Amino acid sequence: MPKFDANGLVTAVAVDHVSGALLMLAHMDAEAIARTRETGFAHFHSRSRAKLWMKGESSGHVLRVIEIRVDCDQDALELRVQAAGPACHTLAPTCFYRRMTAEGSLERIEG
Amino acid sequence: MPKFDANGLVTAVAVDHVSGALLMLAHMDAEAIARTRETGFAHFHSRSRAKLWMKGESSGHVLRVIEIRVDCDQDALELRVQAAGPACHTLAPTCFYRRMTAEGSLERIEG
Repeated sequence: MPKFDANGLVTAVAVDHVSGALLMLAHMDAEAIARTRETGFAHFHSRSRAKLWMKGESSGHVLRVIEIRVDCDQDALELRVQAAGPACHTLAPTCFYRRMTAEGSLERIEG
Repeated sequence: MPKFDANGLVTAVAVDHVSGALLMLAHMDAEAIARTRETGFAHFHSRSRAKLWMKGESSGHVLRVIEIRVDCDQDALELRVQAAGPACHTLAPTCFYRRMTAEGSLERIEG
């Protein structure tokens, strides 16, 4: 089992298993990890709603988990996934769709 | 500026700018972001040591930051980097060098 923080969470990063692209970042507790391993679909723990959620439970844009990787100090997880649709709730393919400019403003990344 | 948590931190993920490979995960405060933007090298905030550090300050395995991306809710950053050496302090190319097996044990990923 990973090393959970004081709130019982680890950070999890979802990455496209084929392209390696970073898709999204969320948090998992022991329950989210167990449900993910049981079902094969990414589940997270919502800190704002304080509950378990399955990514795509309303949108259908689920993440099938191919592999779970663990970092050196065991407090972060990499979910290698196959996405059923856009990973971001904004319908962008990834949540990281903007870059910081030299002036510090945000600019949408095209393509 | 991103949305910092109660501890003044955001999660930052370093990704190889060419291959897109996930390298490491750490935390940044406003100071770490400012130093990263000023110097072009990734700086983080160590939660355990409660201080600013530059990745590679002792090993020489610095991360040159090509671009900083921001996620949809602005509480996570993707640092697109060029790594001067192994990203992990274990000298693995990435901190995420182990996978969870079906039994829940950890297995080193070869290649």
